Amino acid sequence: MAPNQRSGGSGEDQLIARYFRPLAKHPGALGLTDDAAVITPPPGCDLVLKTDGVISGVHFFPDDPAALVAKKVLRMNLSDLAAKGATPLGFLLAIALPRDTAETWLAAFAQGLGEDAEHYGCPLLGGDTDRTPGPLSVSVTAFGSVPEGTMVLRSRAKPGDVVVVTGTIGDAALGLRLRRDRAAADRWNLSADLRHHLLDRYLLPQPRNVIAASIRAFASAAMDVSDGLAGDLAKLCRASRASADIDSARVPLSGAARTALAAEPTLMEAILTGGDDYEIIATVPPDRLQALETAAAGTGVAVSEIGRMRAGEGEATFLGADGNPLAFAQPSFSHF
Amino acid sequence: MAPNQRSGGSGEDQLIARYFRPLAKHPGALGLTDDAAVITPPPGCDLVLKTDGVISGVHFFPDDPAALVAKKVLRMNLSDLAAKGATPLGFLLAIALPRDTAETWLAAFAQGLGEDAEHYGCPLLGGDTDRTPGPLSVSVTAFGSVPEGTMVLRSRAKPGDVVVVTGTIGDAALGLRLRRDRAAADRWNLSADLRHHLLDRYLLPQPRNVIAASIRAFASAAMDVSDGLAGDLAKLCRASRASADIDSARVPLSGAARTALAAEPTLMEAILTGGDDYEIIATVPPDRLQALETAAAGTGVAVSEIGRMRAGEGEATFLGADGNPLAFAQPSFSHF
Repeated sequence: MAPNQRSGGSGEDQLIARYFRPLAKHPGALGLTDDAAVITPPPGCDLVLKTDGVISGVHFFPDDPAALVAKKVLRMNLSDLAAKGATPLGFLLAIALPRDTAETWLAAFAQGLGEDAEHYGCPLLGGDTDRTPGPLSVSVTAFGSVPEGTMVLRSRAKPGDVVVVTGTIGDAALGLRLRRDRAAADRWNLSADLRHHLLDRYLLPQPRNVIAASIRAFASAAMDVSDGLAGDLAKLCRASRASADIDSARVPLSGAARTALAAEPTLMEAILTGGDDYEIIATVPPDRLQALETAAAGTGVAVSEIGRMRAGEGEATFLGADGNPLAFAQPSFSHF
Repeated sequence: MAPNQRSGGSGEDQLIARYFRPLAKHPGALGLTDDAAVITPPPGCDLVLKTDGVISGVHFFPDDPAALVAKKVLRMNLSDLAAKGATPLGFLLAIALPRDTAETWLAAFAQGLGEDAEHYGCPLLGGDTDRTPGPLSVSVTAFGSVPEGTMVLRSRAKPGDVVVVTGTIGDAALGLRLRRDRAAADRWNLSADLRHHLLDRYLLPQPRNVIAASIRAFASAAMDVSDGLAGDLAKLCRASRASADIDSARVPLSGAARTALAAEPTLMEAILTGGDDYEIIATVPPDRLQALETAAAGTGVAVSEIGRMRAGEGEATFLGADGNPLAFAQPSFSHF
């Protein structure tokens, strides 16, 4: 490949006009016809900024439905906004397409993206489209707002705080295993419904944006669980310079995960250390726990108490049924 | 490649800590230890948002110095902020690295990036690092601010406005030709100095951020020239629903470009339609031209009058020495 000069000519313009301009409903997107987007931040608010992306063959399977790839990459970023207590404002999209990308793929991608932009109130503001000799990749930069000074950090957990987590943990990790090893569904005694639940949780995150305001109101610290509960909680502990004791039996599991775990107890490690949960882990001062639970109940998102912060050097300890700490072969997933 | 779960583990953490954390001097970057960055927008200001990136082998040569790749991708985005009249606030970085990327490459990349972040007052706020089976790619999302409602658009040029351009046009296009065909330097009668000038203009854009405030104060419309003067001006004309008549002889050329053009007059098309200029094209009401020129003179950036807007359907016409329009084989560069 010899470098050419930068792209931006008529081919890109046509793709953008056909598939992405209909999504650019925010006035600051300027119909994707200018060089930049412009937004007026809500008065008295801070802007929360996040960028995260996916690469075909690394973060998703090349034959995953394009609409779900679009939703996944947007939701990965929305999940971070939720954990920081932020309300979505919009996003920029950078997409690198192999030359053989079918227009039907792009049409489905744009449709999925538009559905989620609408659903989460997070409009497309602008972007960048390129051709690549490599795998298809998509990067999203998402913007959210919080009242000034109220972004929820990882680093403010205090000894005595209750550790809570939203939803259920481990479904996506099991879903990915099923994706690679279809026979596992039989070994794990999974009905078709339970199998679909796990596969779906891997394909399509359910970010917890509906409880972002409650996290902001009541949590001392929070982050989204994307690289595995054990590893992410350890990051929160290190940032907060405090330790956590987690009762593994209280980590909330779906019916599907419970069924699989009953058949194959060693799956506990995959459940606690696998990634792609897109739940929120938060620490809450005990006197605010009731208020958080009440607020969460109104949103339909389960919030489960799983342990406590204590003074310590930043360790996250998962206690097994016998009261002894679990040992993990690989506490957190890394591509590196 | 089988997808794994998302990255973010210890390998990425170590890379970030070693090479990028030292660049994250803005308090809102939180030392790159949280999930998101946070900025407090200046009161009464709009936020200008831009994302643009480069892929190895597409937008730069794999053996280009890493520090210059870093500077180029940041400057591409800074150039857009300048053309929109915006003051840089900071940027997010998304980088996808092949597994065999040398740490020395990354160290040089981070050093170049840090130098420019400092020089342009545009600090690193956060980012995303991934491994890729494809070519190395870097995407920047840059943020700037303008007083509310004052972002300079493409779409506000009016018949009668003067068309101006900063700096010199065509150097990068000629520099790229030299990069591919070293023998051209002799055909074009270029001394070593002139050859270096052109090669350097391709490798390292000089975004015109020092005149951003003047553009905002005096221009009716503006955009940066990144896909070739002819094509970009045509975009501005279409967005403004007006046409432009440009006197090709008045398009400002460097001594190097003039020398090459004298030896090979057909280079005029490459000069006017090649990309990577990273200059600003602006339209200015005649009664503000003097004020813009005075303001620009104080910054050291040349501003040259090259034509006029007129009523029309959005054509950009480049008139040759004989008064007839030039015809271009390919008015604007596109990878598509």
